[in-house]
Amino acid sequence: MEKKYVLPKGFKSAGIQGQIKPGKIDTGLIFSETPCDCTAFFTKNKLKSAHILLDQKRVNNKIRAVYANSGNANAFTGQQGVDNIIEIGKVVAKTLNVPENSVLFAATGIIGKQLPLDIMVKNAPVVCNALSAKDDNYPKAIMTTDKFRKVRSSVLKMGNKTVTVSAVGKGAGMISPDMATLLVFLMTDAVIDKKLLREAAKEALEYSFNRITVDGDMSPNDTVMCLANGQAGNKKISLKGKDYTAFKKAVSDAFYGIAEDMVSDGEGATKVVKVEIINSKTKAAAKKAALRIANSQLVKCAFFGESLNMGRILSAIGQTGVNVDLNSISIDIGGYRAVEKGKLITGDALKKVLKQDKIHLLIDFKQGKEKHYILASDLTYDYVRENADYS
Amino acid sequence: MEKKYVLPKGFKSAGIQGQIKPGKIDTGLIFSETPCDCTAFFTKNKLKSAHILLDQKRVNNKIRAVYANSGNANAFTGQQGVDNIIEIGKVVAKTLNVPENSVLFAATGIIGKQLPLDIMVKNAPVVCNALSAKDDNYPKAIMTTDKFRKVRSSVLKMGNKTVTVSAVGKGAGMISPDMATLLVFLMTDAVIDKKLLREAAKEALEYSFNRITVDGDMSPNDTVMCLANGQAGNKKISLKGKDYTAFKKAVSDAFYGIAEDMVSDGEGATKVVKVEIINSKTKAAAKKAALRIANSQLVKCAFFGESLNMGRILSAIGQTGVNVDLNSISIDIGGYRAVEKGKLITGDALKKVLKQDKIHLLIDFKQGKEKHYILASDLTYDYVRENADYS
Repeated sequence: MEKKYVLPKGFKSAGIQGQIKPGKIDTGLIFSETPCDCTAFFTKNKLKSAHILLDQKRVNNKIRAVYANSGNANAFTGQQGVDNIIEIGKVVAKTLNVPENSVLFAATGIIGKQLPLDIMVKNAPVVCNALSAKDDNYPKAIMTTDKFRKVRSSVLKMGNKTVTVSAVGKGAGMISPDMATLLVFLMTDAVIDKKLLREAAKEALEYSFNRITVDGDMSPNDTVMCLANGQAGNKKISLKGKDYTAFKKAVSDAFYGIAEDMVSDGEGATKVVKVEIINSKTKAAAKKAALRIANSQLVKCAFFGESLNMGRILSAIGQTGVNVDLNSISIDIGGYRAVEKGKLITGDALKKVLKQDKIHLLIDFKQGKEKHYILASDLTYDYVRENADYS
Repeated sequence: MEKKYVLPKGFKSAGIQGQIKPGKIDTGLIFSETPCDCTAFFTKNKLKSAHILLDQKRVNNKIRAVYANSGNANAFTGQQGVDNIIEIGKVVAKTLNVPENSVLFAATGIIGKQLPLDIMVKNAPVVCNALSAKDDNYPKAIMTTDKFRKVRSSVLKMGNKTVTVSAVGKGAGMISPDMATLLVFLMTDAVIDKKLLREAAKEALEYSFNRITVDGDMSPNDTVMCLANGQAGNKKISLKGKDYTAFKKAVSDAFYGIAEDMVSDGEGATKVVKVEIINSKTKAAAKKAALRIANSQLVKCAFFGESLNMGRILSAIGQTGVNVDLNSISIDIGGYRAVEKGKLITGDALKKVLKQDKIHLLIDFKQGKEKHYILASDLTYDYVRENADYS
């Protein structure tokens, strides 16, 4: 699972300066030479971007292109927001000579502002003409305050064929001054049953993007999209055999890697904390406790300060109301046993563990077999700066 | 409703340096010359301080004294924590010559550490002997990182008698490095039916301490206690007439005032934002939306930065899943109409409003008659500093 951007067979992409964020690459396009099966997952926020409202109507079509922009979320823009993106899509479809309803959209940026339609209509043919199989600019086109681009690729052998799985994402950065917007695009040339594509993506999503938090806020634009164009020519993956397992692992690794990148590149973040509950009676309790700890401002500040009083964690568990005996649980931090049977164990070893960039906080409920984890960032001065000073 | 600490007839109090926090007043006592009816409300956190575990057994007795300390929460301290406080209580009861089970307790401070029993047993007679009807130190004894003491008193006329209602509180400050702990003690000399005392307090609580948030974290020590010793000699308040109305207003004003003080004195806070939802179809939806906005790190940072993009608020409402048409709601900030029928209205007037210390964020759901509000602090550099740098 390499950190490079490799396009699978039959895919091209491009990123250009579209004058939405003057002087920056802000407009991107993914194109497949042949029609793709597509499966997508969108934000659960009731405030959905106009892009998503249109995507939801088109996502079951055969897909040829995905147009994306940063700098403007096209959310809370009403019918005009939808009309605008339809207009831009028409130009894209015409230039690429593909059906209008084979074009999808994604956006990230400020909420409540209409797109600069004239500029974007003019730019649409430009980004179409910039498409290349060796493009390196698309990952930049969707970045906002991301400090680095987020990509993962792997190449699998299936019989005598080569299958490529490649994913690119952005987040959980802010666009000034608005919401973190998670966008992920997975491209593959694999020949795979559409239901299995969805199943692999859904499972990978559950263990990656559904388990990260920077600030507990949900965007109107969150989108994870998977495109499969079948150009690899492998024997179709239609059963859950060896090939499916290898494919699923590639998707999972890509999603997890990008998810971890998003947390470590979260606003102002200095650390990624994996908050894991094990041996819980129910999955729901494990999830509730892990999420409460991961979103606790107190716990997040404590990780930043590298001075973690266990009381904050115990209290966070207590306030969820989950049915666990706090006097029998154990807590390990990076392998250091910090709580055992109702007793805190402090020492210099804990201080050392807290200096790490990636910290594993493992809480054993000692009552069942269920578990859950959340990847969380810490809460820092820079977080406040990024979100207070922007205007 | 004055900001001074006046003890009702028959009450005394004291605050001394008890060497839990060397050099600071950390040990306090409230005493009533005659037995009190008491009604109390405790944290819903499953992690409850040993103080509270003992209080819950005694609270229905006639109460004579409440012993409180800061610097140590006596939470996550197991049976030893309870045994310790029983031991201290014995000395208090003996010194004051009152029944052991007429003494209640409250504490705030670090979690998971046993009380310094020897020191506290020695100090117990000292604080008993410091009791005075003109005491000014008790409000300080329960302070932690509070920057100012929180008190409210009012004097009511009932027939030819004078009734005093006096409340003292602490929070939502931190004790290094632990949780905000809200403690509130209401004292009155009113002759009042115990059920009506509870009813008045419960309603006041619902509109004050149940509606504030600094960081969304719940303490193991939260306690609101009301003591009525009946020394005023007024005609017993046993019906919901004029006297009850006046009494309830005094309690409500005291609780609201102290609650507002707690938010404005919240860690690092520079502003108090009243987030109010009106004309909601259900009370639950109004509460859910108000709380989500009030706890959103993004919204809190935006208030600190005095640069509020409405998208953050709309998105916070959207992510609660409450059934509201975002295109028909209106949002006023300090009287400035910022959102109307799906359109954002920006301008310099909004910037001015955001400079205020107290800001009213009013969101009209335009679908029903229910409402709810939450008082919230902003999220600032100082919040992160206080909670990261302490050790």
